[in-house]
Amino acid sequence: MKLLYPTSLKLDPSLLEGFGASLQPYNVREPIPEEHTDAEVLIAWTNTPSNLKDAASRLKNLKWIQSLAAGPNDVLNAGFDPKTIAITTGSGLHDQTVAEHTLGLLLVSARKFHLMRDSQMQGKWPGNLGGPQPDKEPGTFNTLSEARITVWGFGNIAKQLTPWLRALGADVKGIARSAGVRDGVQVYSEDDLSEILKETDALIMILPGSDSTKNALNAERLKLLPKHAWVVNVGRGTCIDEDALNSALDNGEIGGAALDVFATEPLPESSPLYKQKNVVLSPHAAGGRPRGAEGLIAENLRRFLAKQELKNAL
Amino acid sequence: MKLLYPTSLKLDPSLLEGFGASLQPYNVREPIPEEHTDAEVLIAWTNTPSNLKDAASRLKNLKWIQSLAAGPNDVLNAGFDPKTIAITTGSGLHDQTVAEHTLGLLLVSARKFHLMRDSQMQGKWPGNLGGPQPDKEPGTFNTLSEARITVWGFGNIAKQLTPWLRALGADVKGIARSAGVRDGVQVYSEDDLSEILKETDALIMILPGSDSTKNALNAERLKLLPKHAWVVNVGRGTCIDEDALNSALDNGEIGGAALDVFATEPLPESSPLYKQKNVVLSPHAAGGRPRGAEGLIAENLRRFLAKQELKNAL
Repeated sequence: MKLLYPTSLKLDPSLLEGFGASLQPYNVREPIPEEHTDAEVLIAWTNTPSNLKDAASRLKNLKWIQSLAAGPNDVLNAGFDPKTIAITTGSGLHDQTVAEHTLGLLLVSARKFHLMRDSQMQGKWPGNLGGPQPDKEPGTFNTLSEARITVWGFGNIAKQLTPWLRALGADVKGIARSAGVRDGVQVYSEDDLSEILKETDALIMILPGSDSTKNALNAERLKLLPKHAWVVNVGRGTCIDEDALNSALDNGEIGGAALDVFATEPLPESSPLYKQKNVVLSPHAAGGRPRGAEGLIAENLRRFLAKQELKNAL
Repeated sequence: MKLLYPTSLKLDPSLLEGFGASLQPYNVREPIPEEHTDAEVLIAWTNTPSNLKDAASRLKNLKWIQSLAAGPNDVLNAGFDPKTIAITTGSGLHDQTVAEHTLGLLLVSARKFHLMRDSQMQGKWPGNLGGPQPDKEPGTFNTLSEARITVWGFGNIAKQLTPWLRALGADVKGIARSAGVRDGVQVYSEDDLSEILKETDALIMILPGSDSTKNALNAERLKLLPKHAWVVNVGRGTCIDEDALNSALDNGEIGGAALDVFATEPLPESSPLYKQKNVVLSPHAAGGRPRGAEGLIAENLRRFLAKQELKNAL
């Protein structure tokens, strides 16, 4: 049984030994070499569309694709036969790095590092942002301490992030399709969204991209947020109505937005979001570094050989 | 017995009741009114030099000044008689807010939010900073996870900060005058500094300003740091030789520096540090918001009335 692993990231193949599989590296930017078209398992990471399309037509023995992406749209769109080929995602491999980036975006927003940078680049001391300052005034978001933070989309990334936010003193609530207490955090259903948005200093969006989440944060909901509230999006860009967001910023309806994802990426240069003083723009940089990939692959390889249900199966 | 408290920050005087003291608000930018020159206790926060100088000559009954600053140089230089007037500091009131700012500076440095901002302001997508990225490569500092972080100056701010850094996966060491294990962190003496600097991805400096800490980070020590290492300074600006730092940045001897304090503040516009791409400049904004001041004042007021040793006495 042959498994192909990509050279597009650092993997330690010795952590996949012991199953009797033939482990072969491959280049994700070129067609799979003829001698490896008998592979049963393909590990995918940042493959080119042409590599995937070619693999879909030539790897006749393929039974399972392990993507290392959280949302493997590239693999899904490449033409693999879903009746014969199982696809599993890299969900979980990005929790820590996305959570770290989200915390960074929140701290930039609260402590105004983006405005300090603007002043620095003009050769000016940003004195208005330093020295003695009011603390935790109502109608401000300038610290995580006692900040009311709402996490919309309460999965594994939220579970990684929330303890850090609480350690910094934040009051964290979750929003998800089903309510309940998860990892000690009170998670509300979307029925309660309107009420919770009204009492939010920072809204963190970690929603997946789908028809049901498209423009989830629209003009109406933006108006419910306090005028000082910040929006942080590390889920999918399509979950925010960007025109409505830009209007809300122009009209001072919210405090700002720190965005790692956009409806179209790269964000077109014509987008007015670039020039918004209180938009912090990050180029889909939260994830992109799967951690612990070998552990997931090995566990799924064991399950595959034992004919058990695969983890992260689509 | 009369206590004067400042109106330069929000204080709740009801938290100082119960001692039988007369609690009187005062304006830190004007001379103390004649009817209050009989005060025995003065709480100081962002007083003007002229207010303090005037108070030193007119408050004949003064026995104790509680500053809310961590380093009350303003009070020390105002001419109060040290033989008759005790001075206590606001040490501890700034730990949380300084630690939060420090974490923010570290995350900006690691996740490159400053460079993303530069690109954004030019209307350009900073694509090189997003998408699939190498992770934890030797010779890089792009995440706190497994980063080797050295905290030089291991007091209360370090104790607040360290658990957060560890929760994010960092490997934290301390440097202080005396070695030992503090709050579970291995703290080394300055004798070991050279060896530890060589194995540091981010150096956080939280040293007080004094003759003995002047230019503590000099050209020689900067050369010991790995080329990718970042320096974060939230202590005092005088602890870094700024010319040597600028040269180290020019020569690529370190990765960058996130600075909240400077030898001269505001940093003169002639300083080359403004234009350094990998300097993150913050205008002495880490502290400046005393938290829990009433608790410290009440405890010291109790001790004062009981003729016990005051907390944070100089």
